[in-house]
Amino acid sequence: MSITLGDLAERHGCLVRGDASIRVARVATLTEAGPDSITFLANPAYRKYLPDTRAAAVILSSSDADLCRTTALIADNPYLIYARVAAELNPAPGFRPGVSADASVDPGARVAASAWVGPGSVVERDAVIGEGSFIGPACVLGRGAVVGRDCRLVSRVTLCQGVDVGDRCVIHPGAVIGADGFGIARDGEKWVKVPQLGSVRIGQDVEIGANTTVDRGAIEDTIIGPGVKLDNQIQIGHNVNIGEHTVIAGCVGISGSTTVGRRCMIAGATGIGGHIEIADDVVLLAASVVTSSIPEAGVYGSALMHDDARKWRRNSARFRQLDDMAKKLKALERRLVAMESDTEKRDD
Amino acid sequence: MSITLGDLAERHGCLVRGDASIRVARVATLTEAGPDSITFLANPAYRKYLPDTRAAAVILSSSDADLCRTTALIADNPYLIYARVAAELNPAPGFRPGVSADASVDPGARVAASAWVGPGSVVERDAVIGEGSFIGPACVLGRGAVVGRDCRLVSRVTLCQGVDVGDRCVIHPGAVIGADGFGIARDGEKWVKVPQLGSVRIGQDVEIGANTTVDRGAIEDTIIGPGVKLDNQIQIGHNVNIGEHTVIAGCVGISGSTTVGRRCMIAGATGIGGHIEIADDVVLLAASVVTSSIPEAGVYGSALMHDDARKWRRNSARFRQLDDMAKKLKALERRLVAMESDTEKRDD
Amino acid sequence: MSITLGDLAERHGCLVRGDASIRVARVATLTEAGPDSITFLANPAYRKYLPDTRAAAVILSSSDADLCRTTALIADNPYLIYARVAAELNPAPGFRPGVSADASVDPGARVAASAWVGPGSVVERDAVIGEGSFIGPACVLGRGAVVGRDCRLVSRVTLCQGVDVGDRCVIHPGAVIGADGFGIARDGEKWVKVPQLGSVRIGQDVEIGANTTVDRGAIEDTIIGPGVKLDNQIQIGHNVNIGEHTVIAGCVGISGSTTVGRRCMIAGATGIGGHIEIADDVVLLAASVVTSSIPEAGVYGSALMHDDARKWRRNSARFRQLDDMAKKLKALERRLVAMESDTEKRDD
Repeated sequence: MSITLGDLAERHGCLVRGDASIRVARVATLTEAGPDSITFLANPAYRKYLPDTRAAAVILSSSDADLCRTTALIADNPYLIYARVAAELNPAPGFRPGVSADASVDPGARVAASAWVGPGSVVERDAVIGEGSFIGPACVLGRGAVVGRDCRLVSRVTLCQGVDVGDRCVIHPGAVIGADGFGIARDGEKWVKVPQLGSVRIGQDVEIGANTTVDRGAIEDTIIGPGVKLDNQIQIGHNVNIGEHTVIAGCVGISGSTTVGRRCMIAGATGIGGHIEIADDVVLLAASVVTSSIPEAGVYGSALMHDDARKWRRNSARFRQLDDMAKKLKALERRLVAMESDTEKRDD
Repeated sequence: MSITLGDLAERHGCLVRGDASIRVARVATLTEAGPDSITFLANPAYRKYLPDTRAAAVILSSSDADLCRTTALIADNPYLIYARVAAELNPAPGFRPGVSADASVDPGARVAASAWVGPGSVVERDAVIGEGSFIGPACVLGRGAVVGRDCRLVSRVTLCQGVDVGDRCVIHPGAVIGADGFGIARDGEKWVKVPQLGSVRIGQDVEIGANTTVDRGAIEDTIIGPGVKLDNQIQIGHNVNIGEHTVIAGCVGISGSTTVGRRCMIAGATGIGGHIEIADDVVLLAASVVTSSIPEAGVYGSALMHDDARKWRRNSARFRQLDDMAKKLKALERRLVAMESDTEKRDD
Repeated sequence: MSITLGDLAERHGCLVRGDASIRVARVATLTEAGPDSITFLANPAYRKYLPDTRAAAVILSSSDADLCRTTALIADNPYLIYARVAAELNPAPGFRPGVSADASVDPGARVAASAWVGPGSVVERDAVIGEGSFIGPACVLGRGAVVGRDCRLVSRVTLCQGVDVGDRCVIHPGAVIGADGFGIARDGEKWVKVPQLGSVRIGQDVEIGANTTVDRGAIEDTIIGPGVKLDNQIQIGHNVNIGEHTVIAGCVGISGSTTVGRRCMIAGATGIGGHIEIADDVVLLAASVVTSSIPEAGVYGSALMHDDARKWRRNSARFRQLDDMAKKLKALERRLVAMESDTEKRDD
């Protein structure tokens, strides 16, 4: 498949600078692109590679266009246009609908005629799979789990009983949606399990990464809003509510009953405590720890950055004296003020 | 199913304040409860919802009873009583014993007559499944793995060869028990695998969360004591020993050969180094880092909390100067003392 | 099976001190070893157990030999020799080649005659499994995935389409290799998926732990170099490149497009940001956070260690005042200098 730059520009709302009849067949990076490729420049760190690219065309912003010696597609948001061009040049593979002979589908489940259930997958009673949805190999859909239209469960995904997944969701291998939340009540030195009776509701256009876990609610449901994107290895506790279009990078953990606003961006390895509220449009930097509510939009962080181990050891040992240091500093200040006033008096 | 408050009070050792003949059919939150519901108040943060609840009854402590306008179940530990009432109103679904036609069970495995093995599950030679245990879909029980009585492996659980799981354990999807520990020996610039010859022994009444991993021992066994509760996405290294009734929240990692005492409470995202000992009754706050032994019970923490990014950036840059600051502070103190004594002399 | 110490010494290049004809049948720890066992001393912390061991022989360095009352195998690197002796005494179980009747193998896949595909596993079109490789139960090999010779996918491993695994790799349960990277482009308040068109290439002799995830590249491939060892619960982002013989402990996350050098050692729970470069021979201590490149070999850290919660609370509260403290300290210094010069003048 190849497409002219003119067609791409028209469909994706950008301008061609140069020969619009040039055809491109694939996407590539600036450094690896050849004469059949279209590439893009979005991260300024890669601007240095622009002059020497052998690509047929580059998608970039008008401010970078002067550096570009090839045909250019000028766009306000080059990365977005790249995403769309790449999707156009690499359409998702189609599939033949049906149920694999090696799947185990309960007679009481409903699988849409245009859906697919792969080998090794298990679909329990009352589960529903919507039109055009693809259930890859070795997935488990518990009793009454609902998958909307045009979803893609890649492989080895578990939806526990009653979990509801909206249209056009993508869920990657190893993800577990709707396992019991961590609800335990103390009984002397023992712990008693608190039944986890809620479920998980996932909005439309959500993507959930590999080995990510989203727990079912204790009484009410855990909610993942429409358009939310979750990376790999994330843990979402019971009764968490994540607002629409929030994106969360890998290895983040969010404890139970916490609400995260809309359009938040949470960087990798961040930990968020339970029973708190994060406002809309909050940005959390990598490896932050948040244990109290954040009532206002803004950028927040808490991690210390790496240092040479000897320096780090000295500084972190001093951290344990920080309160003492602060008190000493205050005492010193007082004594200095006393001396200063003493000197002034003396001067009088 | 519905139950009278009188019956509940009698069975669970609490007092009814109001009409003991009222029947409840389900549990609900304070805000969502309707006239057929029983709810509870345990977290003081939710006390504000108590006056307006439409529940038939509220489980609460005597100190909160005055605020309650509905029938009340007065309990010393309302959350515990809630857990028991919720379990009574929502009994675990029964199952028909047997082996799914879509399971793969080695003839040399022993499956108790009252147990169930779900579709897609694989049970290898010499594995043993005890009476009343439920092995959900797509689980793998390696050669010689043993599951006690009345266990529940929800789905997609792996027990590697020889792993031993006690009675009444619950293991959630994606958990991997008994994979090789991370044992490697340096050989020049290469690394040589150290055979992992131990196994994992899991006590009675243990719960293990989704996508949690517990490694097998290098020589002796990794041990998870009775009554331990592990949340999701936890990593337990080889030869770790976790004492009974210890509870560990999500995303915690514990390195090899570490011993954790009994009745510890380890909050989410905590990291614990290898070859150390944590005493009984230790509480670790969220996102703590522990790399040396903790010989005494108590509460410990290490994480820094989120701050506005500009402030955080300034403060964390200063952290790298902390040892210098401490030295300057000391020097300043010396100079001030010198001046003070100088001034005193002068005054003499 | 039992082996004489003389044979072991000869094969593994160490010296016997004592009776070389003694036979050992198994490995054990210093404290648990009996008269048929060989043990080892590598960690100085366990030296205290050496005098009382009941082992037939101990592998140790010449510097520890004096403390040893039993027959000794003297080695420069006792842990390495232990690894080899343990492997010799505990050879990996063989397997009968073939394809389980309960596996689902596409006719267009190629499975070597000496390989095994276990029950519940799914091998898609154009996948290739090399000679001597063992694909355990419930694995998924996507279209065109390639597994080299003598590999072992223990169970429940997913290789997504086109992933290439070198010879002699071991991959543990729950690992997901080649899921889509976290590529999203902003479109107003929404996010658009960026197609992930690269793959993952894994070198020879790599080991990948349970529930670890390695994402496929966005355009080019994610690369795991030969001899790399990854522990459990690790997340490797798209287009990461990990140099040969680097070892990474559990719960580490590495964001996209980052390059990690050769022979690095990365301790548990470390987080590494995206688009940075880590030099060869870098050691990162436990729970480090790295968000800028490390151009030189060395040891680096950033974590704060646990402290009594009351002290920790005071010190971490002071951390938020650290920049203020530094400024006050500077101001104080200036004032003190002023007073000192003032006093000097006065003394003149």
